[in-house]
Amino acid sequence: MKKRSKVQRQKELVDMLKTDPFYTDEELAEVFSVSVQTIRLDRMSLNIPELRERVKNIAESQSTKVRTLGMKEITGEIIDISVGELGISMLEVNEDMIYSKTGTLKDAYIFSLAESLAMAIIDTPKVIMRVANIKCIKFVEKGDRLIAKAEIYRNVDKKHYVKVVINNKKQEQIFRGKFIFEEME
Amino acid sequence: MKKRSKVQRQKELVDMLKTDPFYTDEELAEVFSVSVQTIRLDRMSLNIPELRERVKNIAESQSTKVRTLGMKEITGEIIDISVGELGISMLEVNEDMIYSKTGTLKDAYIFSLAESLAMAIIDTPKVIMRVANIKCIKFVEKGDRLIAKAEIYRNVDKKHYVKVVINNKKQEQIFRGKFIFEEME
Repeated sequence: MKKRSKVQRQKELVDMLKTDPFYTDEELAEVFSVSVQTIRLDRMSLNIPELRERVKNIAESQSTKVRTLGMKEITGEIIDISVGELGISMLEVNEDMIYSKTGTLKDAYIFSLAESLAMAIIDTPKVIMRVANIKCIKFVEKGDRLIAKAEIYRNVDKKHYVKVVINNKKQEQIFRGKFIFEEME
Repeated sequence: MKKRSKVQRQKELVDMLKTDPFYTDEELAEVFSVSVQTIRLDRMSLNIPELRERVKNIAESQSTKVRTLGMKEITGEIIDISVGELGISMLEVNEDMIYSKTGTLKDAYIFSLAESLAMAIIDTPKVIMRVANIKCIKFVEKGDRLIAKAEIYRNVDKKHYVKVVINNKKQEQIFRGKFIFEEME
């Protein structure tokens, strides 16, 4: 890829992060064929916080919309949510989340990422999970970044049906699940 | 119920705890129509540790048999296990495990209690969870004590099928689930 001028690069960088705020500095460095240090300097001069900070800011603003859960009860960071319809959340997989024997992500984290997002998008104050049917397609290792998408596909008789898919950093589907929640009396 | 002599009560207490080590002092006091303090004195004179300690001792001796998981990766305490066949574990539901909005046990704990026990009974060093189909029948509140039972019901082509049921303190079924695990290359 042809090297851009600094001005051009910074303009493109702003555009890229507008459409997808989840690029790491390492990934941006690769896209623009510059060093990670250059990207950091670009971000500083453009007043763009680092990935972790960007995600935290978004998550805080989005989580206030959730009715069914306290903010700390959500696994991962809520990136976008439209209560009553759909939601997107993100989980960065660190050392603590890994099984000692297989080196893969503990299933309780995958379950919890999916289930807490599914619960978060339901537009009623108190719900109970009744059914979960889940499938793990690929295993996940340390350092991966998971994006979960949940969508309500049916509401019948105080029951809410939610589909969740989770992709890894390479955009491969690693999980899909269906959940049924029931409103509590 | 007729009041027993001290000797008679202590004899029955030892027998009761042999068949079911999970009676709390409060429950024993009710059974024998004496005060909790009396039960504590009985236990001390008989050299029987308190429930938490009894469970911990059993769990430590049982967990060493597990091949697929580290001891700290198991949710709840393993009470009895026959690797390759079945297992029983226990979870005491405390304040931290409760959803703020509904006052019920967080689903991630129920999932994790069931799934880690299911995984623990598989007789191979490395397995990955592929499928979980779970149903929550009754919700669980703070202070309850859950007993999970898992059983392998099929082994085909490096796949292991496990059924799990969980009962509450009142012996009501609160959960059932089926899991499929696959051996890792």
